[in-house]
Amino acid sequence: MKVAVIGTGLIGTSIALALRERGSGVWLADEDPAAVRLAASLGAGEPLPEAPSVSWGLWVQADVAVIAVPPVTVAATLADAQARGSKGLARCYTDVASVKQLPVAQARARGCDMTSYVPGHPLAGREKHGPAAARADLFLGRTWALCPGPETSEAATATVTSLVRECGAVPVRTDAAAHDRWVALVSHAPHLVAAAVAARLEGAPPEALDLAGQGLRDATRIAAGDAGLWTQILVANAAPVAEVLAAVAADLAEAARVLTDGDPAGSKSVAALLDRGQAGVARIPGKHGGEAREFTAVQVVIRDQPGELARLFDAAGAAGINIEDVRIEHSPGLPVGVAELSVRPAEVGTLLDALEAGGWPVRS
Amino acid sequence: MKVAVIGTGLIGTSIALALRERGSGVWLADEDPAAVRLAASLGAGEPLPEAPSVSWGLWVQADVAVIAVPPVTVAATLADAQARGSKGLARCYTDVASVKQLPVAQARARGCDMTSYVPGHPLAGREKHGPAAARADLFLGRTWALCPGPETSEAATATVTSLVRECGAVPVRTDAAAHDRWVALVSHAPHLVAAAVAARLEGAPPEALDLAGQGLRDATRIAAGDAGLWTQILVANAAPVAEVLAAVAADLAEAARVLTDGDPAGSKSVAALLDRGQAGVARIPGKHGGEAREFTAVQVVIRDQPGELARLFDAAGAAGINIEDVRIEHSPGLPVGVAELSVRPAEVGTLLDALEAGGWPVRS
Repeated sequence: MKVAVIGTGLIGTSIALALRERGSGVWLADEDPAAVRLAASLGAGEPLPEAPSVSWGLWVQADVAVIAVPPVTVAATLADAQARGSKGLARCYTDVASVKQLPVAQARARGCDMTSYVPGHPLAGREKHGPAAARADLFLGRTWALCPGPETSEAATATVTSLVRECGAVPVRTDAAAHDRWVALVSHAPHLVAAAVAARLEGAPPEALDLAGQGLRDATRIAAGDAGLWTQILVANAAPVAEVLAAVAADLAEAARVLTDGDPAGSKSVAALLDRGQAGVARIPGKHGGEAREFTAVQVVIRDQPGELARLFDAAGAAGINIEDVRIEHSPGLPVGVAELSVRPAEVGTLLDALEAGGWPVRS
Repeated sequence: MKVAVIGTGLIGTSIALALRERGSGVWLADEDPAAVRLAASLGAGEPLPEAPSVSWGLWVQADVAVIAVPPVTVAATLADAQARGSKGLARCYTDVASVKQLPVAQARARGCDMTSYVPGHPLAGREKHGPAAARADLFLGRTWALCPGPETSEAATATVTSLVRECGAVPVRTDAAAHDRWVALVSHAPHLVAAAVAARLEGAPPEALDLAGQGLRDATRIAAGDAGLWTQILVANAAPVAEVLAAVAADLAEAARVLTDGDPAGSKSVAALLDRGQAGVARIPGKHGGEAREFTAVQVVIRDQPGELARLFDAAGAAGINIEDVRIEHSPGLPVGVAELSVRPAEVGTLLDALEAGGWPVRS
């Protein structure tokens, strides 16, 4: 399969890496040439050749073009790609935007060829952005929504479905309206709620903000996103978002009322909302979709000095262990710290033996 | 200074590490003996001796006892500590609970000696918990609220203020009521809002939850906390919490209304709330209080195989560089990944030279 990825951010580059791993050829394009270079240096593919000129005889059409750009620029990017060369950049097209009715409507309004466009949305992401954060296994076991419309050809849908499977994801065919209703609940409304919480801080005294901790940062982080982009998403998905917001507002107004009344039954009402919140959090799927991503952490007490980690990794390497991730917890100036090594569960015993033989205090 | 730390979780152990670094003697106690052992192995101090018996002649009173237990058990722990030996475990006492009026009222109701008790709350935390996550520099540059009451002796306040300064924190003297009003805004109300968002997920179809990503996990993480404990905190701080909740509820109800109406002016209203949210997020102080915590990240492309990281750390160690933190981004099965090495800014040049000499592609 030959794939063109337009937009080499986290999602585009991860798709490219996943497809390269399966042997596909990938062309990379992005309005930022440095992002293309970094993605290419990670093995994600080759830069997309310039637009074919009359003097070129070798223009090859891609099987699929993946448009991995922000939602509001999907339609324009799709139109450009379809206008490229004599037959278009690719035989079929998909996008990865988090709202689906908007780009579909805009593509139709622009007169794009809707038979070759399969709107898509991989449900995967990370806290980090950009090509350096990309992972070939980002989509393993994750749902990837595909929302073909009435005009979409079965051939285009089949090709994009194959691409999704090549990335290790689970294609879920749905319609754009259902997709948008669900993301209202799990993404769009929570974004505006986070903004409403953060908005309370705007006029707060500095003494109050000195008391802010990690919980507030986590709970409001998404509210730091691009307000213009998010306004368009929320407006494009107004009815489902409004329904969730109204329900959250009602619960909070009721909690405010019972806390103000000081009624002993109010404590039960607050506890019930907290319990429902806990139950809701417990239903959110974990960070890692597939078992292949499950690693075990081993904690090792290390001396905080140059060469100590090298000695540790030497010992692990000599035992044939590949350390998948490392976190170091230490305080500059303290003589010891804790290194948390993530390894495959089957390798924990070997690692513990190797580290204990090397004199490190460990616990798994 | 001789300090007893009761409760060797993240906060207690971090206080102990910070004080040990400054040469203080620290006794450690916790209802979980494994937590005391781990804290002690990190250099946080020695286990607190058993209660003095008549046959012991050498019982030494601590200068301060830091009660680092959950808010609702502060008063009982304080009473126990004050009843210990003939003169009590320590000359003065402080706690670290996130609500202050509740433990003060409970301590007074129990007949605790209020002259030696200086209620406190260090504004520091991490996503991780337990002694292994402790850091001696957790409090560097952070605000530490102290709320002495009318009975508190100046001597006790002076001693606890010294302890706060020894931990590198900035003591802020306030009263328990002001403290509780501020944490309502930056901690307690956001907790209940997160619960209200998560509560919407309780009855959602599984297909909707498949679409959940990192943003939702971040925004609702705090709602996973102990519902019983949080109910007590929220009820203990009812009026300030209710005020914030009512304001957030009103903003969300208004957003729901304008989105439902589809009024073009509604888009401006939503954009204004998002803008206020952005402005609020921007006012939250950053993760690291002090400049001493600022490191520079250097990205290195590495081969994903045993021994590669050891070779990398060998090269860094040979150049005299201490790597403060490491993040590895790679996909199992892909031949290369990216290691992000955090080092002191002054060491970046030396590290880049050493890595380039070793043949690694780098960027800073």
